[in-house]
Amino acid sequence: MTLERWKDHRFLKACRCEPVDTVPVWYMRQAGRYQPEYRALRERYSLLEICRNPELCYTVTRLPVDQLGVDAAILFSDIMVPLGPMGVEFEIKEHIGPVIARPVRTPADVAALQLYAPEDELAYVMTAIRQLARDLPVPLIGFAGAPFTLASYLIEGGPSRHHLRTKAWMWSQPDAWARLMDKLAAMTVRYLRAQVAAGAAAVQVFDSWVGCLAPADYRRFVLPHMRAIFGALTDLGVPLIYFGVGTATLLADMAETGATVMGIDWRIPLADARRILGGRTAVQGNLDPALLFAPWPLLAARARSVIEEGAAADGFIFNLGWGILHHHPPVDPATLARLTELVHAYGREVLARREGR
Amino acid sequence: MTLERWKDHRFLKACRCEPVDTVPVWYMRQAGRYQPEYRALRERYSLLEICRNPELCYTVTRLPVDQLGVDAAILFSDIMVPLGPMGVEFEIKEHIGPVIARPVRTPADVAALQLYAPEDELAYVMTAIRQLARDLPVPLIGFAGAPFTLASYLIEGGPSRHHLRTKAWMWSQPDAWARLMDKLAAMTVRYLRAQVAAGAAAVQVFDSWVGCLAPADYRRFVLPHMRAIFGALTDLGVPLIYFGVGTATLLADMAETGATVMGIDWRIPLADARRILGGRTAVQGNLDPALLFAPWPLLAARARSVIEEGAAADGFIFNLGWGILHHHPPVDPATLARLTELVHAYGREVLARREGR
Repeated sequence: MTLERWKDHRFLKACRCEPVDTVPVWYMRQAGRYQPEYRALRERYSLLEICRNPELCYTVTRLPVDQLGVDAAILFSDIMVPLGPMGVEFEIKEHIGPVIARPVRTPADVAALQLYAPEDELAYVMTAIRQLARDLPVPLIGFAGAPFTLASYLIEGGPSRHHLRTKAWMWSQPDAWARLMDKLAAMTVRYLRAQVAAGAAAVQVFDSWVGCLAPADYRRFVLPHMRAIFGALTDLGVPLIYFGVGTATLLADMAETGATVMGIDWRIPLADARRILGGRTAVQGNLDPALLFAPWPLLAARARSVIEEGAAADGFIFNLGWGILHHHPPVDPATLARLTELVHAYGREVLARREGR
Repeated sequence: MTLERWKDHRFLKACRCEPVDTVPVWYMRQAGRYQPEYRALRERYSLLEICRNPELCYTVTRLPVDQLGVDAAILFSDIMVPLGPMGVEFEIKEHIGPVIARPVRTPADVAALQLYAPEDELAYVMTAIRQLARDLPVPLIGFAGAPFTLASYLIEGGPSRHHLRTKAWMWSQPDAWARLMDKLAAMTVRYLRAQVAAGAAAVQVFDSWVGCLAPADYRRFVLPHMRAIFGALTDLGVPLIYFGVGTATLLADMAETGATVMGIDWRIPLADARRILGGRTAVQGNLDPALLFAPWPLLAARARSVIEEGAAADGFIFNLGWGILHHHPPVDPATLARLTELVHAYGREVLARREGR
């Protein structure tokens, strides 16, 4: 039903590499601390309280759509959420991130992780998605963390700079690693299928930390599990977006996962990314999120460059190269609204010029 | 004199892309916390006290050469050291890094930075270098931080994850940025020339954080200054090594700086790096430093892959893709000694095989 409703929306058409009227745009972390309304809510509720309350989740997910004019909403949640019912106790600490009560250290810890039915255990997520899918003027993107990134939190016990413990564990206990990744992949598939069943029109898998790996390690320890995930989602017929930071040298392998849209960070020009990925994968990105703190003329010039590179072929969604960053003073929401207008106006121009040729 | 003495040393020959008997090897941060002797010294002296005392600096610089059998020493110091006499007040805080008393925020702050004669103001560095150059059984590498990385500390006031303030400053005050980079580049040239005059047989410029930039920003805001530095050092006739982390997409531009050896991190295979750099630039790297915490058979297998890729052409120095990382338990110095032996033995084998063809 949802899929039918959004079939001709420019965001989904771009994801499918079909021609569009103008360049679709959304922003990673478009709901968050830069918004005064979000900051006000966070004075009363923790991040997890917002995630677990369908009404608050709805409000926060919807706000940037109404404020910025973006072409997609993304479910407001945290990649840690689906780990809770697996038996992982954690909190999200202010200015730190997820902190795990008992990190995964042994094969027995892996065996103890439970698979479950997300429709039941995460019913509050599905409730929010159903309401959003019904009301939103744009498609809703569901999301999950990728197994490597989730495993790094589970093994390190929290955020980590060099992911040393994760890598050492992966190298020294390859069998337990494979079982952990299998379980996380299986749960990711269930969770994303449930989100699509509830009304998500696309899904994005965040593998934020996978860029710390050498390509050889990615191929051996991550790629098979990502292939399993995207392979098990293909029949849903929704765009499968895969995103990581600093993945320029992994893109050739990431293209083999079955993802249909690749999130690209700002370190690699979109034209180069496209060349590596081949023609059938759409690209999403890749403005340096720090540019939101630059003077408007420079930000606008760089955005136009990204649009020119991206819109040179079908299959382009404008986004940042990472999420909107927290800083003081925060990004002005008006800047993002203006950027959205620029993408739509200049995107139309570039596409018309391309057709004229 | 020093240059003459080391002319035929395999480290310098490899830097010049000349044939060698076996693959030379050294490790970034080969003097540091993983060594029990270093940890014992640090109980009595701060990092800066060691840097500023020629005798301690000598001891710490020399220790890994005697213990590990590496083919080069690198001056023990900190990239912040040459900023002191420019008028920058800072401390190096345990578990944090450099913290600047009054960060650079205005064009006036840039104007206030003083150029000086490093032979006088940093006489203790030159004293240590002279003694090391006289006594060491291998060539000594001098070093300095690159202007972008130094500027990021000066502007942020300390270590930073996203370098937001640095980028915003660079974009919004391009003239002041250029003057800051010019000054840091001029001081880097003076400092490295003085180190070579004192006996350093090669120099390495550390641009640790430059990988946070999009290629377009690197070209506009960094490349001209790096070109100025290496251009002003070429007449010295010593290898000019340039290193950054996560620079895969910057390598093509970094190759235009005039550096003669490029430090490569583990995210990009050496063969790909070579293809991007072209034939005349030697490569140094690129084992993931996390592998020092992996079981020996896996570490050895990965080291052999690096050697096979690197030694496929002349101009290869084995190293890690970044410095030796601090962790508990720390890297065992015996592992590094064993790795050094492996590089020399397997390097000889690979080179002989190549010649046999």
